[in-house]
Amino acid sequence: MTEIKVLRNVLEANQQVAEENRRRLREHGIFCLNFISSPGAGKTSVLEKTIAGLCYTFRFACIEGDIAGEQDAKRLARLGVPAVQINTEGGCHLSAAMVKRALDELDLGNIDILAIENVGNLVCPASFDLGESLRFVLLSVPEGDDKPRKYPEAFITSQVFVITKCDLLPYLSFDVERVIREALEINPRLEIFRTSAVNGAGVEELCAFLGKKLKELRGPNA
Amino acid sequence: MTEIKVLRNVLEANQQVAEENRRRLREHGIFCLNFISSPGAGKTSVLEKTIAGLCYTFRFACIEGDIAGEQDAKRLARLGVPAVQINTEGGCHLSAAMVKRALDELDLGNIDILAIENVGNLVCPASFDLGESLRFVLLSVPEGDDKPRKYPEAFITSQVFVITKCDLLPYLSFDVERVIREALEINPRLEIFRTSAVNGAGVEELCAFLGKKLKELRGPNA
Repeated sequence: MTEIKVLRNVLEANQQVAEENRRRLREHGIFCLNFISSPGAGKTSVLEKTIAGLCYTFRFACIEGDIAGEQDAKRLARLGVPAVQINTEGGCHLSAAMVKRALDELDLGNIDILAIENVGNLVCPASFDLGESLRFVLLSVPEGDDKPRKYPEAFITSQVFVITKCDLLPYLSFDVERVIREALEINPRLEIFRTSAVNGAGVEELCAFLGKKLKELRGPNA
Repeated sequence: MTEIKVLRNVLEANQQVAEENRRRLREHGIFCLNFISSPGAGKTSVLEKTIAGLCYTFRFACIEGDIAGEQDAKRLARLGVPAVQINTEGGCHLSAAMVKRALDELDLGNIDILAIENVGNLVCPASFDLGESLRFVLLSVPEGDDKPRKYPEAFITSQVFVITKCDLLPYLSFDVERVIREALEINPRLEIFRTSAVNGAGVEELCAFLGKKLKELRGPNA
């Protein structure tokens, strides 16, 4: 029982800090995205494409969560985007407290969209609110169309489901209709995008969606 | 500090049960494999191919770890292999205690190789010994060649590194030499196999390796 109790305390403490983060971000009119997926599902690539599509309209910043290394922050910094790298030192997910410290490193007055790339893990990050406005779950075509049912939590807690690496569909048996149907059974309100960072499919739709959402957050007079 | 202390207690308790499992398996001359990877890296497919290649020589059994569902156990049961499904109900890894209970369900006198398929997660399962003889880390080509450095623990604690989905190499930029070099920098004693469940590449080598290892475990007179 101790284990469960401590986990609950950890989650409650996390939730408090997440609400603080959310208030702080809202005060600055920042739209915050939390990207969750398995390792290598293409979080950084989707982010690169989205930033390229929207960087003339909105000011981006990124928080990169990794167990070790800073490769992803370097990739995004190359696009001229302020990027803070969080190394979890073995930790399997980002916490709201880690994000809070990263926010201190950013110039919040100069950000429209803050993208947080969580640790590559389709399981644990789903339990930790970071204070985001929208949560994205990404699933790449090579991972297989059976994943929503096998890893439901990430799909239950997300508002957006991005299918990535759709350029690989001709080489793999992946039933797009099945994965969409099963994801919607788990969470009927998911917004779903089919994308490829290789040929750019779906990126325009994703960018339009984000622009619309940011306008909703800021209201008609922003 | 509470969180860390409890985690250490959990790991110590797990280690004790893992040693019990290891003794029990050794008494029955069972060679036990623990497969760790991201979701969809091909654990079940590699297992299916290995079983098909060795099922006339050795008696297999499987323990399937999943957060929800029993699809993988059903896939393996189709091969005529005794399979026990563990549902972790949200838990991000198998524990030695879960495996202990699963061992009670198996006829240990009729097993040569017991394959445990862990929850799809490249992070958390690496911290939990299950009592296995050999730990396998699998990485699929679509996940990218940068993963050993980003997720070092699974590579540090494994003895075997299986690169899966090599049939997709023509369609992706994945540097096999780089991934092997960086994995060996992290753990120089890794045995490495390049495989494809689609065209069967590397399966024969993997089967030969397992046969050799089982003979080592049982000694020359087995």
